[in-house]
Amino acid sequence: MTTAGKRLMEHARETAALEQILGRLGWDQETVMPRGAAGQRAEELAALEKVLHARRCDPRVAEWLDAARSEDEVELAQFREIRRAHERATRVPADLAAEIARLTSLSQGIWAEARATNDLGAFAPTLSAVLRLKRQEAAALAQGGDLYDALLDDYEPGATGADLAAMFAGMRPRLVALRERILGSTRKVPGLRGSFDEAAQLGISDLAARAFGYDFSCGRIDRAVHPFSSGSGLDVRITTRTTEEEPFGCLYSTIHEVGHGCYEQGVDRAYLLTPLGRGASMGVHESQSRIYENQLGRSRAFCGWLYTRCAAVFGDMGVDGPDGFYAAANRVHSGFIRTEANEVHYNLHILLRFDLERRMIDGELEVADLETAWNERFEADFGVRVDSPANGVLQDVHWAVGLFGYFPTYTLGNVYAGCLFAAMRTAVPDWESALSAGDALPASNWLRESLQRHGARYLPRETVERAAGTPVTVAPLLDYLEDKFSALYRL
Amino acid sequence: MTTAGKRLMEHARETAALEQILGRLGWDQETVMPRGAAGQRAEELAALEKVLHARRCDPRVAEWLDAARSEDEVELAQFREIRRAHERATRVPADLAAEIARLTSLSQGIWAEARATNDLGAFAPTLSAVLRLKRQEAAALAQGGDLYDALLDDYEPGATGADLAAMFAGMRPRLVALRERILGSTRKVPGLRGSFDEAAQLGISDLAARAFGYDFSCGRIDRAVHPFSSGSGLDVRITTRTTEEEPFGCLYSTIHEVGHGCYEQGVDRAYLLTPLGRGASMGVHESQSRIYENQLGRSRAFCGWLYTRCAAVFGDMGVDGPDGFYAAANRVHSGFIRTEANEVHYNLHILLRFDLERRMIDGELEVADLETAWNERFEADFGVRVDSPANGVLQDVHWAVGLFGYFPTYTLGNVYAGCLFAAMRTAVPDWESALSAGDALPASNWLRESLQRHGARYLPRETVERAAGTPVTVAPLLDYLEDKFSALYRL
Repeated sequence: MTTAGKRLMEHARETAALEQILGRLGWDQETVMPRGAAGQRAEELAALEKVLHARRCDPRVAEWLDAARSEDEVELAQFREIRRAHERATRVPADLAAEIARLTSLSQGIWAEARATNDLGAFAPTLSAVLRLKRQEAAALAQGGDLYDALLDDYEPGATGADLAAMFAGMRPRLVALRERILGSTRKVPGLRGSFDEAAQLGISDLAARAFGYDFSCGRIDRAVHPFSSGSGLDVRITTRTTEEEPFGCLYSTIHEVGHGCYEQGVDRAYLLTPLGRGASMGVHESQSRIYENQLGRSRAFCGWLYTRCAAVFGDMGVDGPDGFYAAANRVHSGFIRTEANEVHYNLHILLRFDLERRMIDGELEVADLETAWNERFEADFGVRVDSPANGVLQDVHWAVGLFGYFPTYTLGNVYAGCLFAAMRTAVPDWESALSAGDALPASNWLRESLQRHGARYLPRETVERAAGTPVTVAPLLDYLEDKFSALYRL
Repeated sequence: MTTAGKRLMEHARETAALEQILGRLGWDQETVMPRGAAGQRAEELAALEKVLHARRCDPRVAEWLDAARSEDEVELAQFREIRRAHERATRVPADLAAEIARLTSLSQGIWAEARATNDLGAFAPTLSAVLRLKRQEAAALAQGGDLYDALLDDYEPGATGADLAAMFAGMRPRLVALRERILGSTRKVPGLRGSFDEAAQLGISDLAARAFGYDFSCGRIDRAVHPFSSGSGLDVRITTRTTEEEPFGCLYSTIHEVGHGCYEQGVDRAYLLTPLGRGASMGVHESQSRIYENQLGRSRAFCGWLYTRCAAVFGDMGVDGPDGFYAAANRVHSGFIRTEANEVHYNLHILLRFDLERRMIDGELEVADLETAWNERFEADFGVRVDSPANGVLQDVHWAVGLFGYFPTYTLGNVYAGCLFAAMRTAVPDWESALSAGDALPASNWLRESLQRHGARYLPRETVERAAGTPVTVAPLLDYLEDKFSALYRL
């Protein structure tokens, strides 16, 4: 490597190490931080973020990038990621970045209050202000290109709004049709009944995490209000939540976060604390968490094993053996809330948000017209009228904190998961028999070898296509959903 | 404030915030970090320490310091602390600082191995290398002045080796005499007997922490191998340890760390995240931990309350009521190990180390002669021959990691605590009756108001003298020890 390349990598390694610290502070804040420390913590985070921003903007990075030469594909991929971070950091004027940071730290509280009181009017002026600033940021980033794409690039490098719109348009009719067939079915699937000791839920979640290969020597599981995964490499911590009323929330939140965590733990150690030493994108990350949670975790095979573990401590749970447990874990019920949605409804929630936020960023939809647009679309896709803003446009935090361009990565992750699941089933013949014995390693090791170990070595879509061995299309996901739910609901 | 002063303070606030993050990572490492994360963590810490070093050395700091003008005493004290950090950081050549960091990160492991195998020879070359580098560092810092004073200044600004030597020389004869009278006494004090549930110990420790005013909304208590306190301001966390064999280790480690923690929590909020927003020195810190632990925590008054709490869960513990419990908590027994020493022996351990390390830094004592010097002095002061290096010169980690100049702050803290205790007793007439009811707040609030709230506003000795209202002398500590142990051992 050239001297410039070495300096660049040394700088990048230190930046990556400082980014890990930022993540650790986030974990600390949500799990163990004393509540009185919040104000001080905000100052600490701001100081560290300022250091990181200055490092990313450092003019020496541009000089090193210009001078660095390499024939090595991995080194070139490192340079690519460094350049991306440098360009994004330098394109947005410091005043604008500071204004966005200030507003979005306040807007989260305003949104939470508005949602609690079901008062969209109290939040609309703030959302308008956030939207205005994010449009400015998009313009600074896009340099004449598409505004929405510029924001999307933060979460899914290489993706475009137009490509996603075309992909999602191919999904919507089949998803709506499947939803209607299920809800028109005479089959009624009961949920679980009983009281579920929270410590026992955590115990079974722990077993499930081990079944998927989550490495506790380089991670831990704690309780938090919102489940999340945090950190890369040798220190990847996840959280989960429990409620005594039902155990699926804890079990499947855990398996979902185990998917994120295993991805980070599974990246090649040679990339540790470098720009490649993390997941390739939000979409690819979601593909891992979703395939662990849904295609594997909610499969009949794993549900059988899980039923045995649950029945031993919770009794019969009001269901008819492992088949009833499997059906309950996949029960399709209408609902307004994205985070409570099943596999069939989930993507319809996302498609709605993607279309609306793209029109907002493009200036075609203003905040004043947002609620009407949301409610009309919701009724068209879900067949139900939204009964209140808290169950509609106010339900998610994303827009409040400026995360425009984030939503589509959820569905993209599901599409990726569909492709990967199809490939895995062919490549790993014994995945299902192992899973029915509580061993997800044949499946998860294939994912690690085929995808996870590469980290951010390839661009997101290439990462998935190399693993799947085929171009990314929506067909495998839709086929999987139609097969699974046709059988479950005897359609 | 002038513009230069404002820039200086803004820079200092961010540095203070980053220093808090460094402390939080230390806490994380000792309490919750997955064991496999150690290597990655070392890289993360190194990156953050490099950022901090660069900030302290920033040439703009010197320019701002030269240009800053203020009439305000607090601002001038802030500038004083910023100047101290800047000068110390810039005087030591970067190569030397890096060499010391590298060697002392290795030497801790070599020392631990040598202590475990009782093999001084395996550690001596490493200790010689550490000593050589620390002498070089001292020379760089001292700029022609006294070498030992230059190192001491890191832990106790304003103190000198000569002053401390004179102070300690006045203590040694009375301590040795008291020790001999106690060990010659016919009174035999039994220790506790029984089995002590560790969760119950932690429960009582929690009550004790609350009794002293430790604020759990801005702190927490966890278990760790070594008890410590970490953080300043609104996020001050302490740790403790337990063993089923006896409860005093847990109870008094907790109260000791509560003293450190309350000091940091008690600093005026106006100094939050500034150079003044922390304890004034290691010695003043130790004065708070020691007065909480010993003068208050091991008093007859508090032992009576503690006995009731302990007896309720542990039974009679083999002692004769609260008086027997009080005697057991203050039992004087000969021993080789500093960290297990009682109030009478503790300072003799420190005086020995202070004299030896001062001679080592001054070049009068080489590592080859250290064991003999240690053992001769130990026999003279303790009346016992050291039976092995692990019970002698190998017992402490301090020298292994280059902490020359640290030891005397332990005894200085005890001396400070003696002065403060005398003043508190006069100022707070009801301290003892409250304490016997489990309420340490009259005493600890006096310490907060008189001393803790000032943080690093004054130099260490001035901090203590303003609170005590008298010059610092050894007499109050020695009088306290002689009174207490004469009564206990009926001398």
